[in-house]
Amino acid sequence: MITLASDFGSPYPAAMKGVILQRTDARLVDVAHDFPRQDVRSAAFWLREVLPYFPPATHLVVVDPGVGTDRNALVLRAGDHVLVGPDNGVLLPAARQLADDFDLERYVVDETRVESPAPTGSVPPGEPTTSSDPDGPASNTFHGRDVFAPAAAEAHEVGPDGLETLEFLEPATEYVSFEFPEPTLSTDRAVGEVLVVDDFGNAITNVPGSFLADRERITVDGQQVPVGDTFASVPVGDRLATVGSHGYVELDVNRGRGDEAFGLEPGDQVGLEPADENGDT
Amino acid sequence: MITLASDFGSPYPAAMKGVILQRTDARLVDVAHDFPRQDVRSAAFWLREVLPYFPPATHLVVVDPGVGTDRNALVLRAGDHVLVGPDNGVLLPAARQLADDFDLERYVVDETRVESPAPTGSVPPGEPTTSSDPDGPASNTFHGRDVFAPAAAEAHEVGPDGLETLEFLEPATEYVSFEFPEPTLSTDRAVGEVLVVDDFGNAITNVPGSFLADRERITVDGQQVPVGDTFASVPVGDRLATVGSHGYVELDVNRGRGDEAFGLEPGDQVGLEPADENGDT
Amino acid sequence: MITLASDFGSPYPAAMKGVILQRTDARLVDVAHDFPRQDVRSAAFWLREVLPYFPPATHLVVVDPGVGTDRNALVLRAGDHVLVGPDNGVLLPAARQLADDFDLERYVVDETRVESPAPTGSVPPGEPTTSSDPDGPASNTFHGRDVFAPAAAEAHEVGPDGLETLEFLEPATEYVSFEFPEPTLSTDRAVGEVLVVDDFGNAITNVPGSFLADRERITVDGQQVPVGDTFASVPVGDRLATVGSHGYVELDVNRGRGDEAFGLEPGDQVGLEPADENGDT
Repeated sequence: MITLASDFGSPYPAAMKGVILQRTDARLVDVAHDFPRQDVRSAAFWLREVLPYFPPATHLVVVDPGVGTDRNALVLRAGDHVLVGPDNGVLLPAARQLADDFDLERYVVDETRVESPAPTGSVPPGEPTTSSDPDGPASNTFHGRDVFAPAAAEAHEVGPDGLETLEFLEPATEYVSFEFPEPTLSTDRAVGEVLVVDDFGNAITNVPGSFLADRERITVDGQQVPVGDTFASVPVGDRLATVGSHGYVELDVNRGRGDEAFGLEPGDQVGLEPADENGDT
Repeated sequence: MITLASDFGSPYPAAMKGVILQRTDARLVDVAHDFPRQDVRSAAFWLREVLPYFPPATHLVVVDPGVGTDRNALVLRAGDHVLVGPDNGVLLPAARQLADDFDLERYVVDETRVESPAPTGSVPPGEPTTSSDPDGPASNTFHGRDVFAPAAAEAHEVGPDGLETLEFLEPATEYVSFEFPEPTLSTDRAVGEVLVVDDFGNAITNVPGSFLADRERITVDGQQVPVGDTFASVPVGDRLATVGSHGYVELDVNRGRGDEAFGLEPGDQVGLEPADENGDT
Repeated sequence: MITLASDFGSPYPAAMKGVILQRTDARLVDVAHDFPRQDVRSAAFWLREVLPYFPPATHLVVVDPGVGTDRNALVLRAGDHVLVGPDNGVLLPAARQLADDFDLERYVVDETRVESPAPTGSVPPGEPTTSSDPDGPASNTFHGRDVFAPAAAEAHEVGPDGLETLEFLEPATEYVSFEFPEPTLSTDRAVGEVLVVDDFGNAITNVPGSFLADRERITVDGQQVPVGDTFASVPVGDRLATVGSHGYVELDVNRGRGDEAFGLEPGDQVGLEPADENGDT
């Protein structure tokens, strides 16, 4: 099984699928292709939340603002899973979730040794693309198709225990690190950050859900809102704080958009405090 | 085969797919994940129109404004098909279309007996989510992942004739009903309602297509429009009434949006009358 | 393997998948369902760019502004590939790319002999749709479901070498032609056209990438921009000209939208000239 995730929209992911299906008959499952454009942090968050629900698989990830530069391409073995993508940190939170540190192997892709796909047809529609490296991939702008897709297909074919047999892989001696911001927590105050806003408009913070335990109301940047177990615990259109499916404090609106009601977007700081149960702060 | 339908957008459906693929290697087919948010009627309409074209399958449906409340989760056998989703009526029109009434079986899911998925990784990214019921699902806000997906996978594994062997199912003694609004019809007037607007902007009413039979023009809320067999029977940009692929009167614009041209949205009433063939009302 | 491409949005493609899966257990791969509405040229471009990366397959394409008129439905064999879609030119650029001219076979679908799908359920939700031809397909507005999907499934089952055994196919004696506009090229000037704008906002022209060879700057409609190997060769937010993954000159913005920055949309003419390397025109 190979999962695919990118910020490509459409139809570029289909070209990656064609390239993969030239080399393997693995099942393909889309994770998402509408990650916020070139936003490594959002993609890293969603991959960490979603990939652990999959059985062992090869995960192809292309959110790659540095495409065509000298940033590396990585292949990681994380337990029984394999992750393939650019060396910009996007793979790390998911990899750490999928395996303990001692069960991680990191490889760099030698792009000159990956066999780029050859489309059917002897005359390319436009012209061969220029490349600063004649041994490099076919294009400087679509490594998803020309580097990552073939690397993922080959990695899938050899499996997590066969990565060292792939001639285009070399052990990685260094790689770009990545950490989510940590909240500042005390018993009566949490200062966190909105990590992502989901498609429902829920503003997902980095404050652990336990901050809401046994509380009926909190203040969010000074404004009181009820704490609810479910969206439907408040009237339609009302705001609430809840513990989302990721285990973090979320700021939501029942059948509405929390990001708009709270005026929050990814990266915004947010301060949470317990509120008087009578509705006074 | 398991089909998936929701109003989740992206990337939450991928978590459901991971959960399912932990339990079965069934083929997965997306019906849609962009149903209008928490709009049971629209989802019920589309499922009734689309699912009957599928071979026997398990259909997972999550349009669930009451997630986390005490609404039930249902599993229905409808002939050779199985439907899994919340007890809010969304499954019923499709189920009635897929089977005669005497060939329907209804089960309620005992959520405390569904094995919620355990993501890979010993330390969850956030924290375990709070739940008012310690035996309940892992989250109060993502039953698609924690209740419906595992239930659908198990239902698929036993098949439509094995549902009674599933320990988490109990016969349903009652369930939320659902009916689409009926139009008021006479030979020279139809008063109906816009059921949904499709992605092309076609306003699909609940008036049977036969109302247009042998007519060349009708009035829509008093305004004359031609009746056409095809969008292209009128000039580009012009309005028309036609019989859509669902068998209902649709109000369309050739290569444009009927909803905007007619000023109609789902739920709006609309009055149709035959018009003088010379273009006078 | 059957690929699917359309301008249908959602959920109509699912009905086509159901119809296909009633007849074959082929792997289904979506190319895109969000092609610009009823825009034959854009779809023809993307299909030509994407389909050659696939292994031999049947490609179902429905971008069909003339649905329900007397335009023909076509099945083309292009080498080891088969293409199925409306006779409006949308299939031709991909077909020419997939096979040399002498390896192309063209068939017209006799729509009265295609077995339209019968949905499960004895009573259709609305009513049977009117059709000007009682032997014709079930609807005048959804040939994707009622003509093209069954034709593609049958074509897949017999394979590229068995098309002549399909009773609903007849050799095509004529068909609608299609050519992309050609640029006017000289050594110091190219006058081209924006063919499409991709999801990133890159304005893809029909000017071959070789026009940028050995140049560091060009003018685009008189305004100077740098030529870059990669998006990241200019600061974030800056404009550049590059050779895209299709081999054509693209007008882009690093992490932004080139179409907006250059004020270009599909169909717009654009004039490119070499610029003085010192930044003067």
